[in-house]
Amino acid sequence: MNSFGRLFRVELFGESHGPAVGALVDGCPPGLPLSAEDFEADMARRRAGAAGTTPRRESDLVSILSGVHASFSTGSPICLSIPNKDTRSADYNQFHALPRPGHADFTSMKKYSGFSDPGGSGHFSGRVTAGLVAAGVIAKKILPFARFNTEVRSGVPGKTLDELVVEAVAREDSIGAIVEVVVRGLPVGLGEPFFDACESVLAHLLFAVPAVRALEFGDGFAAAGMFGSEHNDPIIDASGKTSKNGSGGINGGISNGNDLVLRVAVKPASSIARAQRSFDFSKNAMAELIIEGRHDACIALRSAVVIEAATAIGLADLYLTDRGLYTRDVENPWRKA
Amino acid sequence: MNSFGRLFRVELFGESHGPAVGALVDGCPPGLPLSAEDFEADMARRRAGAAGTTPRRESDLVSILSGVHASFSTGSPICLSIPNKDTRSADYNQFHALPRPGHADFTSMKKYSGFSDPGGSGHFSGRVTAGLVAAGVIAKKILPFARFNTEVRSGVPGKTLDELVVEAVAREDSIGAIVEVVVRGLPVGLGEPFFDACESVLAHLLFAVPAVRALEFGDGFAAAGMFGSEHNDPIIDASGKTSKNGSGGINGGISNGNDLVLRVAVKPASSIARAQRSFDFSKNAMAELIIEGRHDACIALRSAVVIEAATAIGLADLYLTDRGLYTRDVENPWRKA
Amino acid sequence: MNSFGRLFRVELFGESHGPAVGALVDGCPPGLPLSAEDFEADMARRRAGAAGTTPRRESDLVSILSGVHASFSTGSPICLSIPNKDTRSADYNQFHALPRPGHADFTSMKKYSGFSDPGGSGHFSGRVTAGLVAAGVIAKKILPFARFNTEVRSGVPGKTLDELVVEAVAREDSIGAIVEVVVRGLPVGLGEPFFDACESVLAHLLFAVPAVRALEFGDGFAAAGMFGSEHNDPIIDASGKTSKNGSGGINGGISNGNDLVLRVAVKPASSIARAQRSFDFSKNAMAELIIEGRHDACIALRSAVVIEAATAIGLADLYLTDRGLYTRDVENPWRKA
Amino acid sequence: MNSFGRLFRVELFGESHGPAVGALVDGCPPGLPLSAEDFEADMARRRAGAAGTTPRRESDLVSILSGVHASFSTGSPICLSIPNKDTRSADYNQFHALPRPGHADFTSMKKYSGFSDPGGSGHFSGRVTAGLVAAGVIAKKILPFARFNTEVRSGVPGKTLDELVVEAVAREDSIGAIVEVVVRGLPVGLGEPFFDACESVLAHLLFAVPAVRALEFGDGFAAAGMFGSEHNDPIIDASGKTSKNGSGGINGGISNGNDLVLRVAVKPASSIARAQRSFDFSKNAMAELIIEGRHDACIALRSAVVIEAATAIGLADLYLTDRGLYTRDVENPWRKA
Repeated sequence: MNSFGRLFRVELFGESHGPAVGALVDGCPPGLPLSAEDFEADMARRRAGAAGTTPRRESDLVSILSGVHASFSTGSPICLSIPNKDTRSADYNQFHALPRPGHADFTSMKKYSGFSDPGGSGHFSGRVTAGLVAAGVIAKKILPFARFNTEVRSGVPGKTLDELVVEAVAREDSIGAIVEVVVRGLPVGLGEPFFDACESVLAHLLFAVPAVRALEFGDGFAAAGMFGSEHNDPIIDASGKTSKNGSGGINGGISNGNDLVLRVAVKPASSIARAQRSFDFSKNAMAELIIEGRHDACIALRSAVVIEAATAIGLADLYLTDRGLYTRDVENPWRKA
Repeated sequence: MNSFGRLFRVELFGESHGPAVGALVDGCPPGLPLSAEDFEADMARRRAGAAGTTPRRESDLVSILSGVHASFSTGSPICLSIPNKDTRSADYNQFHALPRPGHADFTSMKKYSGFSDPGGSGHFSGRVTAGLVAAGVIAKKILPFARFNTEVRSGVPGKTLDELVVEAVAREDSIGAIVEVVVRGLPVGLGEPFFDACESVLAHLLFAVPAVRALEFGDGFAAAGMFGSEHNDPIIDASGKTSKNGSGGINGGISNGNDLVLRVAVKPASSIARAQRSFDFSKNAMAELIIEGRHDACIALRSAVVIEAATAIGLADLYLTDRGLYTRDVENPWRKA
Repeated sequence: MNSFGRLFRVELFGESHGPAVGALVDGCPPGLPLSAEDFEADMARRRAGAAGTTPRRESDLVSILSGVHASFSTGSPICLSIPNKDTRSADYNQFHALPRPGHADFTSMKKYSGFSDPGGSGHFSGRVTAGLVAAGVIAKKILPFARFNTEVRSGVPGKTLDELVVEAVAREDSIGAIVEVVVRGLPVGLGEPFFDACESVLAHLLFAVPAVRALEFGDGFAAAGMFGSEHNDPIIDASGKTSKNGSGGINGGISNGNDLVLRVAVKPASSIARAQRSFDFSKNAMAELIIEGRHDACIALRSAVVIEAATAIGLADLYLTDRGLYTRDVENPWRKA
Repeated sequence: MNSFGRLFRVELFGESHGPAVGALVDGCPPGLPLSAEDFEADMARRRAGAAGTTPRRESDLVSILSGVHASFSTGSPICLSIPNKDTRSADYNQFHALPRPGHADFTSMKKYSGFSDPGGSGHFSGRVTAGLVAAGVIAKKILPFARFNTEVRSGVPGKTLDELVVEAVAREDSIGAIVEVVVRGLPVGLGEPFFDACESVLAHLLFAVPAVRALEFGDGFAAAGMFGSEHNDPIIDASGKTSKNGSGGINGGISNGNDLVLRVAVKPASSIARAQRSFDFSKNAMAELIIEGRHDACIALRSAVVIEAATAIGLADLYLTDRGLYTRDVENPWRKA
């Protein structure tokens, strides 16, 4: 059931240590300029290497197998393949018997009756998000009017994320963080009632990103402790501009033209170097678990661009749906030049 | 785009002050005992009347138009209609020109080019959730092993919700709250990777509920400030039981057999009796806005059963999907030889 | 699984002898003029009464429960309910034990484990197509440029349909026929490759209509015996006009601007007054079966408007999808006046 | 919109002269034995080479990029890639200006505003069906109880297909044919009312296959000229066996356990060596068109396995859906009490 979208559709494939990961993108309008280089910047943001991130190195070159001709999208499905190179399958074989806390080892073993690919968590690996980032690049081209601003913040009041990452590395541990996405320039009108509310579509995508534990729009959880007179956003001009933005840019499930503001909580990476306890199914007893291999001290640093991509994909689908059902604006933004 | 689900499908219809609201439920297996009385308890939980809720009175009798024969589901679509009785359309005509803060008045006017029904917020009214609650009753019957426990809590540390409701009424204002749902008894295995992760499906539904601003599973936002060694849940027996439940019962997007725990932030109702400011499109200037009529001081009190219903609907769809794709409990026909 | 469509979505509900049949129509753009009277003409075409049709009388008044305000569509789901009045449930109770040839009695009993509604074939009744006809009325409003011409013809070379109907009535039997739909005025471009080819979308809908056994576009089955030089349609001007229309107005799954031409074979009604043989499950032996009650001698006479409606629904969905994904034509046809 | 299916989902990608064609298959249950060799037999049936087929030679080796581990399906999406090798893009560049009769040249140029890939008809090429055949191999594994028998027949009464192919080659022309698929061994119960009737799901897929002009089940078009007493199939035993099979194994949209019988008309290939006329958009006048390159004299010979694959895909999706929604073969959890 690995597909998303009504008009702009994305399906992800691949396992961490298989031949490739990637995305099949359907419903991309024809005429968007698109080439392999367009993916490089976002793929680099997701790639490992910075402080707090795993030393696994992948060049992450995106190969376009279909749907692009003469450097323009054709309107037919775009298959994006990203070969895996730096794979070490042997690291993971033990975890079917001794499941890692926080991972899908136990649940996937049960759900798939032992047939799921254990290597690097298989299809449950964060590696699969490489395809999501690639699809996000196309989504952003469908939304040329939208400007994304994405930041990673500490989830601990009074400490910086840098301090926490240093502390986590020293502890042989990992640390969570907050990722905030602000989207400027959106038109009024994105979001379909009831079930395809703007928040619903984005939430569906964002909670699919591994390690996301929570999501809020605008005032978010703080709104649960506010009075209506504090939380409501007064409209102050004919464009729909509001004097504050407690709603995060969405009213009644429809974008209101103000900044879209959302925050997700990214949990600390489940794989940590320090010893943990788990249940050993081969011995029917508790056992100590040591996870060898490569770990991210703060996975949120690499999740940020993934979360931005998921946001862009949802907005692109809502934008095309809105164009199909309503005809307020008619100029084709991407075929102008 | 008002439909949800893959196998268990729900579509809502109706406007606040139209002839009826309701739900069309498709994919209900045949043979479930079902009659009009089955809806009464949950409809009563949603209905107005308690302290802090609107005095609008609806009997909320659910009429079964199809899909049930001799008090059992037949397997064909179940149309549930809930007539509107206590309607006062005249209250709302002004809000196309002077949109209420926090409501969909401005966004729906723009998106639907002025054709949306203004009466009682039309299709954007919380009244539409009556159909969702009715569909939730059927979903719970599909999940006879699941026990739902749903609570409303204060969103303000140090104050009780009762105190806040009294304060809100005194201020001619409204107050937000937290709704927590715990589901016990779920099997391991609900949730499809990647995009139909258990959290994704539930989040899609929960953010469709009016007034929901935020959602978290397990440790939620707190996980953003935790170390991995603190957040990870060690598995302690062969059933997959964990010694703590930071993940809220889901790993890798798949239910792990422990309690499913989620919390949503419900914003304070946007309609308040005290005066507010908004932009008057007829005068092209700011103006004072007084919302006459009936208001909820704490809409979360009535949203709780709606949120529980949304949770049940998502789980029912995941349960049926899991039955279709995997055959743990029955013989696997293609794995025999 | 009783729903169809990507943007223009239709879901049918109801049983022959239940309280009502109807349709829930989602994705209707706002601003279409719509009132109960708009349904009358097509509902009358479907209604019984002409020579060769059943004497069951239904007024078939369409009640609009939602989605229409001040005689315009609002953009929210339109629930259309058509109450059943002339019901005679007792006629049908025997057929669970002694299934009627050609009907769904046996298959529905098995699939739904005996829980399906037997009355008048329940959800398998042709009565359910009343909702489809109503949805078709809305679809045609979405396609103001399209002109539908639908005809019923004899399926026997050398005999007229009138002759055959007389003969069928005399035999206490029923007779099949051909229904041809021609749609003029369609734009170039409706149909999505690969799986949502124009023919695929229409075929999906048309084979859902009870009693349809076959479907062909343009030359249809005759094309299987033609040379390419005979079947190919030369383009003769810059609008894409072809000198003949062997393709039925579709190339590569996309409408080409010429007339869309399709024909379906409607089988003879399965219910006939003359005695038949079937297997009596209560006696575990063959038995004679007499079907009392009301029968259509030529169901195709009433199916014609149903088939036209199905065609319109598919085209409306393809039209809105095309508008969403591509922006060649921008003027909103229904908001002009 | 290039995807199909509810639980067993197939999406096709690729262009005739691009890097690869292929399929992304989602919803394949875990535990099916699967390796690259499994695809060889059906891919060979589709491949060129026999009398009447194009001399284009492709080895058609299927590369499994994901979803298979240790020669078993894992339950995650299976990406199948089939590289293109024998490509000759230059053959096709002229057809944007001088569209070939019967091809998508004109319609795709218009729909995609000139951005569609012209090489070998791009995504509109029959080459894309290689991915469908590969997906069909997996579908057949999901249906181990089903036996497919597929035959190609002449569409001209009194002539054999061999004679017609010889005649077509001599004429520098092409010839159509009939493909019949019979599926034995299906269980009772496949097919969902109303819109996902067994015939509807299969028709959707079959009309997506390039060159299909018509489709009939059982008696098909002949039923339009039959009396009900001739067309009805009497049930003769407790298994639902019928004494004849005019319905083609489907009643009320649900498989009845008898042979499923369908026939499609495959048009003559549009590309023929002999001269044709078309409209030259560069000269705004009619012109002679010569299609150089490789042609199939009878494309139906290669379409047969494609049509069989489409049938298998539809049945696999209906089978998994039926397992999800109904529990005839296992215990019904909600009917216990």
